[in-house]
Amino acid sequence: MFPFEYYIPTKIVFGEGNINKLGELALPYGKKAMLVTYDEALVKKLGFYDKAINSLKGSGIDVISFFGVKSNPTVEHIREGVKIAKDKKPDFLLAVGGGSVIDTAKAMAMGAFYDGDVWDLAEGTGQVDKALPVITVLTIPATSSEMNATSVISNDELKRKEGFVNTLMFPKLSILDPELTYSIPILQTAISATDIVSHLMEGYINHNDPWAPMQDRYAQGMIKTIMDCLDKLIGNPQDAQARATMMWASTFAWNGFYVCGLGSFDMPIHMVGHTFSAFYDLAHGSAMSVSIPAVMKFHLKERIEKYSVFAREVFGINGDISEKTAKAGIDALEQWFKRIGVPTTFKEAGMPSNELDAMADDILITAKHWGIETYDKEMVLAILNLCL
Amino acid sequence: MFPFEYYIPTKIVFGEGNINKLGELALPYGKKAMLVTYDEALVKKLGFYDKAINSLKGSGIDVISFFGVKSNPTVEHIREGVKIAKDKKPDFLLAVGGGSVIDTAKAMAMGAFYDGDVWDLAEGTGQVDKALPVITVLTIPATSSEMNATSVISNDELKRKEGFVNTLMFPKLSILDPELTYSIPILQTAISATDIVSHLMEGYINHNDPWAPMQDRYAQGMIKTIMDCLDKLIGNPQDAQARATMMWASTFAWNGFYVCGLGSFDMPIHMVGHTFSAFYDLAHGSAMSVSIPAVMKFHLKERIEKYSVFAREVFGINGDISEKTAKAGIDALEQWFKRIGVPTTFKEAGMPSNELDAMADDILITAKHWGIETYDKEMVLAILNLCL
Repeated sequence: MFPFEYYIPTKIVFGEGNINKLGELALPYGKKAMLVTYDEALVKKLGFYDKAINSLKGSGIDVISFFGVKSNPTVEHIREGVKIAKDKKPDFLLAVGGGSVIDTAKAMAMGAFYDGDVWDLAEGTGQVDKALPVITVLTIPATSSEMNATSVISNDELKRKEGFVNTLMFPKLSILDPELTYSIPILQTAISATDIVSHLMEGYINHNDPWAPMQDRYAQGMIKTIMDCLDKLIGNPQDAQARATMMWASTFAWNGFYVCGLGSFDMPIHMVGHTFSAFYDLAHGSAMSVSIPAVMKFHLKERIEKYSVFAREVFGINGDISEKTAKAGIDALEQWFKRIGVPTTFKEAGMPSNELDAMADDILITAKHWGIETYDKEMVLAILNLCL
Repeated sequence: MFPFEYYIPTKIVFGEGNINKLGELALPYGKKAMLVTYDEALVKKLGFYDKAINSLKGSGIDVISFFGVKSNPTVEHIREGVKIAKDKKPDFLLAVGGGSVIDTAKAMAMGAFYDGDVWDLAEGTGQVDKALPVITVLTIPATSSEMNATSVISNDELKRKEGFVNTLMFPKLSILDPELTYSIPILQTAISATDIVSHLMEGYINHNDPWAPMQDRYAQGMIKTIMDCLDKLIGNPQDAQARATMMWASTFAWNGFYVCGLGSFDMPIHMVGHTFSAFYDLAHGSAMSVSIPAVMKFHLKERIEKYSVFAREVFGINGDISEKTAKAGIDALEQWFKRIGVPTTFKEAGMPSNELDAMADDILITAKHWGIETYDKEMVLAILNLCL
């Protein structure tokens, strides 16, 4: 175990139908909300927007709506939101959506108190000492953004995607209502599941603690749980047990809990995958299902034992600690990705393979920014070639 | 999954040697500390008292020491502490010890703002709306008290032991320094391990959620982890990896996380075991190793599947879902208790068996107080008879 700090002051209120309690639960934070969400027509069609508004108005809360968040949220759009927040001065920001919406609200929460360009905060060149309170109503379980202090935003002009962390961005309150997720199409559910698995795999395969039975078993159990959920949901996309379990597992997959004590570790899966999204606007989860097997294969030789245990514990593969068993674990994971319909190669993801050199350079910028020193250009190109 | 709220605002600072940072970490809470701990001669011999005092004084924090907390802390002693706290008005309470010390400090924190008798707070007949901040330095990992809002205290006069919960009692900060646990004798370590396992087993075997793969795997993994730690520590009581892992696993065994979504469930293991401690001052962990197998046996017939999975996942017992496999799981757990040196029967615990009737009545008082309606006197006596 390595030293760590753990502090997550977010309050979770979990249960079916909880969106109808939103007004009552949000009221302690003020009577003027700025609601951040996706495209207006979309959220009205999906129904949760009206539910949120009705509950807020029922508690006498005024609402300014800020629509238009897209997957891989952009700093351009966040700048618009910050401008409105500075002008209208809401008491709190209310993110109703998935990770992109919540990350947008978090960046806006800090940006509202920053005089410069909000991108400075993502780059770490600007600082603030306060932020608007953020409340979330999660509609797509995937990123854990509802219970962590991270925001990941993109800058199309610079072709950059940056994650940044600040305790000011912890949501004060997150409402987890699994019923809101019943109608998520099965492919999008699979992409989210891949995202969740990527969070668990990142720590699990890359950490350097020689003995971490608590964390390793947690990761194994959570990965199996996500797979169990998908199995149920492929059979019945409205399976209440699976939707609820996936929602809560998702929150605790990347909120900082299971990596406690693992020390710092490289995050090559995300380092590589971020570039796929920045270059080709690929959904984050789909980028992960391409990068995970490639990164695993690249490190195969030095991780025989870890992968063999993974093969046994997650997929029930009988076999000794050997390259064969290790490889069988990677194969099984790739097969699972294929079975749930997410891409495992550039080709399957519809990405061209003629910009590998530029992609490698971009990946190395991320590496530098994240303090990852393990990978040089040759290694990154080798990983990219394992993605083709 | 059943509806739930999850909110744990305690900040954890984990790492070897962290007791030396106590002053610096506590300073934001004020310059006047009331330090709550065990017997004066004992804590001075164990060394952590001087370390704590030195660190506090180094940061200019004045300290009032309140010694004398015993295992199964009594309301009589807590009343003394409350009187001193009301008189001296410290800025915060600092618990340096295990669950008994922390529970004492938590009860004192509320008692300091209550005009009546602090036992009223335990019984739920009295209320307060504020409490002194509590900081903890954990020296015995077992109860999770360092990261939950519960206090368990005893009333010798009434022969009662009560657990009560109030979010005001969440420690603001808990310092987890595994080095402080290196010198815990192996038998006491085993008793603590049993306590931790009892927390995990309580939810795991008694919950009523028909599908809880995340929570069940978590409990299984944590139980195996505690067993792994004990194996290492029996070989070398100063094994740093095992001490650190046991400390963190202990915190997350009963802080409310893994029971999220399991709904309300009976707690027969603790319901029965509390009476052992109240009647014979048996260490809590030793009470648990007697009550766990008895409760499991009592419910064997209706829990064949759950126990069979437990046998397979925790002990690697090959077998189908059957009474035989289920029983093998209970046997294996009893054997583990015996191997680490904790009692599994009244006889081994040195408890007389001539007060079963009075004990059953006491257990039913606890049941009533905890809202457990499943057990009548005949059932409780049957469980007690399985303990002999």
